[in-house]
Amino acid sequence: MNVLLVFAHPEPRSLNGALRDVAVQELEAQGHQVKVSDLYAQGWKSQIDRADFPALAPDARFDPGAASAAAFAAGTLTDDAKAEQEKLLWADVLILQFPLWWFTMPAILKGWVDRVYAYGFAYGVGEHSDRRWGDRYGEGVFAGKRAMLVVTTGGWEAHYSARGINGPMEDLLFPINHGILFYPGYQVLPPFVSHQVRRLDAAGFAREAERLRERMRTLATTPPIPYRRQNGGDYLIPSMELRPGLGDPGATGFALHRDAGGAG
Amino acid sequence: MNVLLVFAHPEPRSLNGALRDVAVQELEAQGHQVKVSDLYAQGWKSQIDRADFPALAPDARFDPGAASAAAFAAGTLTDDAKAEQEKLLWADVLILQFPLWWFTMPAILKGWVDRVYAYGFAYGVGEHSDRRWGDRYGEGVFAGKRAMLVVTTGGWEAHYSARGINGPMEDLLFPINHGILFYPGYQVLPPFVSHQVRRLDAAGFAREAERLRERMRTLATTPPIPYRRQNGGDYLIPSMELRPGLGDPGATGFALHRDAGGAG
Repeated sequence: MNVLLVFAHPEPRSLNGALRDVAVQELEAQGHQVKVSDLYAQGWKSQIDRADFPALAPDARFDPGAASAAAFAAGTLTDDAKAEQEKLLWADVLILQFPLWWFTMPAILKGWVDRVYAYGFAYGVGEHSDRRWGDRYGEGVFAGKRAMLVVTTGGWEAHYSARGINGPMEDLLFPINHGILFYPGYQVLPPFVSHQVRRLDAAGFAREAERLRERMRTLATTPPIPYRRQNGGDYLIPSMELRPGLGDPGATGFALHRDAGGAG
Repeated sequence: MNVLLVFAHPEPRSLNGALRDVAVQELEAQGHQVKVSDLYAQGWKSQIDRADFPALAPDARFDPGAASAAAFAAGTLTDDAKAEQEKLLWADVLILQFPLWWFTMPAILKGWVDRVYAYGFAYGVGEHSDRRWGDRYGEGVFAGKRAMLVVTTGGWEAHYSARGINGPMEDLLFPINHGILFYPGYQVLPPFVSHQVRRLDAAGFAREAERLRERMRTLATTPPIPYRRQNGGDYLIPSMELRPGLGDPGATGFALHRDAGGAG
């Protein structure tokens, strides 16, 4: 398979850098083709702004969504954004690797999403009517591909557990897994999360590296998180609310959007 | 009161720009002192990197947390980050205003958090022992201050409702409200959220503007979201899990960390 790993840590000599090398080596050992987008090394521009839309008239009011739609349709996005889109189209599997900073991704990776996920490419796609509400949440440009997160934290696993004070890791990552990966069509694998990474000794690193290798060996076979497809009949259109009667009686919030009867 | 509004939209002639002006005018009419950090106008640097730590040796391994701790302690953070910290210390109320992009804040605002929330300033503060786990979640540098979000979306309110496909807005904003604002001590007011802003006509804008004015008039009196204080007895230390028996029997995930017996 073709695998794109987007890496968002500023220091190659970090634990994140070491885990990235472990992942790439294992993927290549399995015969996969691997590309890495090392955002810091590439000097990736984090914030979306007028400079992303060279075709926009200098005195025009800047509407990021409208500018994105026009530039994507006309092929006038900047070369760095186009190159990332091409890598995404090439890849069968996308891996986003980052340290969890303030309970989400670092700014540079958020900026990769904001700038690469153009209108007409990753959103604003498909028929919007009383029968369909676009090609999203299980459909879209990346349908048929797989994605997963590789995340490190400085905190304790218990703090991210079901009753932990930070909130469950699964819920903290939902806006990314469901809102950024499932939205444009990816099947999303459970994340690889490594906790308390600043305290890892050699034995701890060996253990985490082996866990990561195992995940790299099972990319094609790991059951994805069973998020409900938007256009599969579970949601009312156009309100996009889960139909009455669906979902565990006790389920609320994010958990409603997993089909408990599905795989995983 | 002193109010700091951090604004993260690239176009002053946008709906966000108009809402910002409404908020500032109303706050000033109420006699408050207002400062605005307009991140795009300031040319804010979004990603944290080595350039943020001029005292770091060029060949040193870059550990963002350790570099942040050393630079904050020595007073060698960059001037732009120090200026934002001083504004935060000056303000009694912090408002973060942004368009919701991919279910969270734009990269430039995430970079403001990553770079301004230094180790020793907004985290890594206080005693860590078997009795306390730092000054956080209700304690910390911003204890006694209030904060709120002003958020715009292009989507439908129903899509962000309790059973809406995007997930409930309250849960999508939890990592920010709880993890970025409550964490260093702010009392967090319910957010102001304006939906489908690209379709607002003049009457719609007048309605949203008046809703926002009312929120600006009630900053001091609106009951905060009743998040549980970490060191108030509700959590086991050091696992920081909510004590057995606390929380509604049916509550899971983020909802556990609101005290249903509290205000709001």
